[in-house]
Amino acid sequence: MRNQQVLIDSLPQGKLSAGNYRLAETEIAAPKAGEVLVKTTAFAITAGTRAGLQGSASYAGAPTTGVVMNSTGVGEVIDSTVEAFSVGDAVVAPTGWQTLSLHEARALTKIDPAHNPVDYLGPMGVNGLTAYFGLLQIGKPKAGETVMVSAAAGSVGHLVGQMARIKGCRVVGVMGSDAKADVLLGQLGFDAAVNYKDANYRQLLKDATPDGVDVYFDNTGGMILGSALFRMNVAGRIACCGVVSQYDTDSPEPGPRGIPGLLVNKRLTMQGFLLFDFVEQYAEARQQIHSWMQAGDLISLTDEVKGLEAAPEGFVDLLAGGNVGTRIVRV
Amino acid sequence: MRNQQVLIDSLPQGKLSAGNYRLAETEIAAPKAGEVLVKTTAFAITAGTRAGLQGSASYAGAPTTGVVMNSTGVGEVIDSTVEAFSVGDAVVAPTGWQTLSLHEARALTKIDPAHNPVDYLGPMGVNGLTAYFGLLQIGKPKAGETVMVSAAAGSVGHLVGQMARIKGCRVVGVMGSDAKADVLLGQLGFDAAVNYKDANYRQLLKDATPDGVDVYFDNTGGMILGSALFRMNVAGRIACCGVVSQYDTDSPEPGPRGIPGLLVNKRLTMQGFLLFDFVEQYAEARQQIHSWMQAGDLISLTDEVKGLEAAPEGFVDLLAGGNVGTRIVRV
Repeated sequence: MRNQQVLIDSLPQGKLSAGNYRLAETEIAAPKAGEVLVKTTAFAITAGTRAGLQGSASYAGAPTTGVVMNSTGVGEVIDSTVEAFSVGDAVVAPTGWQTLSLHEARALTKIDPAHNPVDYLGPMGVNGLTAYFGLLQIGKPKAGETVMVSAAAGSVGHLVGQMARIKGCRVVGVMGSDAKADVLLGQLGFDAAVNYKDANYRQLLKDATPDGVDVYFDNTGGMILGSALFRMNVAGRIACCGVVSQYDTDSPEPGPRGIPGLLVNKRLTMQGFLLFDFVEQYAEARQQIHSWMQAGDLISLTDEVKGLEAAPEGFVDLLAGGNVGTRIVRV
Repeated sequence: MRNQQVLIDSLPQGKLSAGNYRLAETEIAAPKAGEVLVKTTAFAITAGTRAGLQGSASYAGAPTTGVVMNSTGVGEVIDSTVEAFSVGDAVVAPTGWQTLSLHEARALTKIDPAHNPVDYLGPMGVNGLTAYFGLLQIGKPKAGETVMVSAAAGSVGHLVGQMARIKGCRVVGVMGSDAKADVLLGQLGFDAAVNYKDANYRQLLKDATPDGVDVYFDNTGGMILGSALFRMNVAGRIACCGVVSQYDTDSPEPGPRGIPGLLVNKRLTMQGFLLFDFVEQYAEARQQIHSWMQAGDLISLTDEVKGLEAAPEGFVDLLAGGNVGTRIVRV
């Protein structure tokens, strides 16, 4: 069968462009014993995969060209040599940016027909689980505390803010446009939303956090992390989830001033985490997230791009802050 | 009675100099009801007090001129209106840089005659307790792990390294002279000592930490913190105790590169702490430290300066790395 793919054609020098990718068409073999053939229906584009194009200083490993761009997707089993998976099953898989892919059974997660498969790219998937464990187990918010989150309208951020609200916290989102602020305040129940591109950003952040910040969920690093350090309360927690401000460049900034000085003065804890450290608690977390969704407390925002060939532009635009919620490519 | 004092005459612009201080002689009153008059026998000079001359971004509060330079000291009660303290008692007190001082009883700690009073400026005092809680409760080293400490020959660092050795860790000290390295290796049982002024510092650090670093006790911030980040193992802990590299300047560096990126990739925890958060555990810690000293496992190095008037030069020299162990001014 013919497989449409988007390959990494060259590694970005400076900012990523759509020209760093190329379309390809190849023949995909029938599944060998133990393999399952999946037809992609949609995949997610996440900022973290930009780090995978960045060289060895990333958890994504060293970058390569000529390979399919990686991503998590959802799809349908169209051929299977494995008893556990039947033709027609909906699955989550590391599909990459392509229409067809072969997987060993252990790489697949079956999606309960009661669920919308696309939720497994958002709240029930990597983004939702990252928000859940980063906020609850690293940030440890208590009711009545103030939680600040950066990239607050992003795939992880918009879920973090809602989970903090569910936990009884005051929620302050930082994002890069007033249209995003409207979504956070109007649809997702954030208490305040501050635009980091505003010339008065620092003052606006101060006004939005009259009782300081107890938990900062950091998706960006850089200047916004620096601003959070100055608003943190004594014994505050910073959950370090990602560094989107530094991904799309080949000259990352130094760390913010005040590290480690402000960490000492305010007895702050900064802790980095990766989702797969929590793998044994995924099922429990998914159950909790699902019940929040059922109750209408947690809303999943998705931002769809149509067609495989639109993925590169969709990624470039995402890195420039163009998305609201989880960006999904419908194949 | 006449009281000899060292006053802060001006706030340093850039580096501290002895000229920022002046000697003064004033009359001290007899103790009022509830007060105790203490004659200073010795006081400690610690790098952290430099932060108190630095403006508001410090736990030491906003700086003032015309006041006595602060410090912890030991002394003898020479007049008392309080039943709990009698003439001749040895006490620890916030004496400051002066020969006489008046205190409320609650500011004083009586020294057991079984102890050498000066130990209360080192291992049994602020430095020892800081090393103890920072290493054990923030760094949480396990036997067999590698512990790295900066300012390793300093008042806190030389105790941290020995405590880590007692806990069964491989101990790597970073300091600024080969003479200090000799002390760490020859007298204190460090496994390795690396001079950060060496042109090959990064390579030497790598060679000294073949299994990476599990716990980094950071007294310096700056470049040495940056170097530690690259040597940290997954799930490592960084105890942020002080920022001596940034105290003696009015233009502190930005934070090291790799924050927060390396914190995420390696799931590191950086945690700042201040000693007084552990006040309820001081007695227990002092008992443990005392028994290590009795057993000969923990050696206290002191570095004495003679006479009150020598304190300013002693402080300037300490900030330039001139001390080995706890710098004490004998009055």
